[in-house]
Amino acid sequence: MNHVNQQILLASRPTGEPTVDNFRLVETPVPALQDGQVLVRHHYLSLDPYMRGRMNDGKSYAQPQPLDAVMIGGTVGEVVESRHAAYQAGDKVVGMGGWQHYAVVDGGAAGMMRKVDTTHIPLSAYLGAVGMPGVTAWVGLTDIIAAKAGETVVVSAASGAVGSAVGQLAKSRGCRVVGIAGGADKCNYTTQELGFDACIDYKAHGDLKALMGALKETCPNGIDGYFENVGGVILDAVMARMNAFGRIAFCGMIAGYSGQPIPMANPSLILISRLKLQGFIVSEHLPRWPAALQELGTMVATGKLKYRETVAPNLAAAPEAFLGLLKGRNFGKQIVKLV
Amino acid sequence: MNHVNQQILLASRPTGEPTVDNFRLVETPVPALQDGQVLVRHHYLSLDPYMRGRMNDGKSYAQPQPLDAVMIGGTVGEVVESRHAAYQAGDKVVGMGGWQHYAVVDGGAAGMMRKVDTTHIPLSAYLGAVGMPGVTAWVGLTDIIAAKAGETVVVSAASGAVGSAVGQLAKSRGCRVVGIAGGADKCNYTTQELGFDACIDYKAHGDLKALMGALKETCPNGIDGYFENVGGVILDAVMARMNAFGRIAFCGMIAGYSGQPIPMANPSLILISRLKLQGFIVSEHLPRWPAALQELGTMVATGKLKYRETVAPNLAAAPEAFLGLLKGRNFGKQIVKLV
Repeated sequence: MNHVNQQILLASRPTGEPTVDNFRLVETPVPALQDGQVLVRHHYLSLDPYMRGRMNDGKSYAQPQPLDAVMIGGTVGEVVESRHAAYQAGDKVVGMGGWQHYAVVDGGAAGMMRKVDTTHIPLSAYLGAVGMPGVTAWVGLTDIIAAKAGETVVVSAASGAVGSAVGQLAKSRGCRVVGIAGGADKCNYTTQELGFDACIDYKAHGDLKALMGALKETCPNGIDGYFENVGGVILDAVMARMNAFGRIAFCGMIAGYSGQPIPMANPSLILISRLKLQGFIVSEHLPRWPAALQELGTMVATGKLKYRETVAPNLAAAPEAFLGLLKGRNFGKQIVKLV
Repeated sequence: MNHVNQQILLASRPTGEPTVDNFRLVETPVPALQDGQVLVRHHYLSLDPYMRGRMNDGKSYAQPQPLDAVMIGGTVGEVVESRHAAYQAGDKVVGMGGWQHYAVVDGGAAGMMRKVDTTHIPLSAYLGAVGMPGVTAWVGLTDIIAAKAGETVVVSAASGAVGSAVGQLAKSRGCRVVGIAGGADKCNYTTQELGFDACIDYKAHGDLKALMGALKETCPNGIDGYFENVGGVILDAVMARMNAFGRIAFCGMIAGYSGQPIPMANPSLILISRLKLQGFIVSEHLPRWPAALQELGTMVATGKLKYRETVAPNLAAAPEAFLGLLKGRNFGKQIVKLV
């Protein structure tokens, strides 16, 4: 079988905002399998905000994405050929296959790939609600915010892959849930389809004072937990409304990925309100994945955890879709359809 | 017995930096004791940074200090008359007697006053190393920073009542300890008398870059724990040098008490370095006080926890001494001698 692979490489590092010119599409032959290897054809590629951080070579929590190498990213697909006993052609798998059509994977490498059951859960969901974004929501809400019934939880980027899971998980635990999202469509989606109690359109509340007013109205008992996906003025407004002993899980800081850092206006609130702020990366919480995936999978299979996807039509469209994700143009989980 | 009391009241709230005009000294008669009451003559009054926050009537962690009422504050003294069975004349006590020579205390009110043993521990130490500042250091280091042997701990306001205890406790737990203090005298004191491994004079390192350079030099393995007493550019510099999973205990933000809040330059470091930042107030950790006082008292009695005091000579000198404390003019624990 002579498969031709298409791959997207990181061609250059962005200075300020990334552009499509930072990426390059190439064609390469798929090498023949060695013993122990598995050839996977990708059905979907996941696009995620963390990839922006890896495009820089400055200090970050992950190794920088190497230049002229295939962009790293989560994938789901199907085994087309296997020389490893644990896999056979037709198996559905989730892994970190990267921005390409085919990946040759070492079948014995722990954590690189796992088989998934698509009887009750669509394959693409393993990139979203039952994958890394869902587990991110679960770990932040369960282990850092430690949300209790009756508390008020706010989540930014509320209609996104992580935010929508945060809110629905928090609702299932008896919390009041208020989302923050950009635009009436996204806000209506969280309240009307996902069951959030309220949602604030940050585009209609353009400054700190307006945001604080909207938070006061939608969170009459203050805020106990905040799942932070964006940073900037939204963080400032939420912090000003936090109750004593509030917890903030820092999952993403989209506002700060490009260019200059965005300051936190009033860090003395950490002391005044005795807040706990904690950053986390879900890949460093591997012992929690099984419990998280169990709950998330059950909720998706039973219709209790809903999600939306924005699907780019092919690999060549991935860079543009990724740039749109950074600007919030997607609606729900951004994926790329490859088959 | 007709005692005349001298008291200092809060006369007005500061706009910006406080001045001596915000205080007023008055003379009042000491009322006769009722059944159950105890009359205490104060030997020393404690001056602490938290008092600055109480002078405002904005949102803070404590009730504002009422206007025209005696300034609240910790005191040590001697029982001169008692109509409560648990106390008798001559008992040494620590309490919250306020800025005055005499206090009438309800002997049965839990937590208002306790007897102390001055056999091996000087009375004034119960306002410092074996009192609220010492317990503050202990709780922040033990429960929030959770310092482990081999880690590097940085503490600002390092020669102060809290900071000097933080550093010596961290040394006793096997940490590398680096202080930050203002001036060569304070720095030399922490390294030569208290056993810190290094100390950075922030007055000789006036900007972010210089502070970061000094931290790189003195913390070659990065920073695992930071006990934050000041805020501002020092916080920014320390955050930039924190190791992954570093912990910051927010105890004080002197830099922000007066006037405008001082921003945190780069909150995305919370995510990038997976930091935990937590504010705390020692009075909300009462269950930890006995263990803390036990360790602190033993260390002081055996000479393993050293401290310094700056002593204002009389009650009338308290406002000026308090303003000096806010500007870092004291050296070690600031107290006022009343007898």
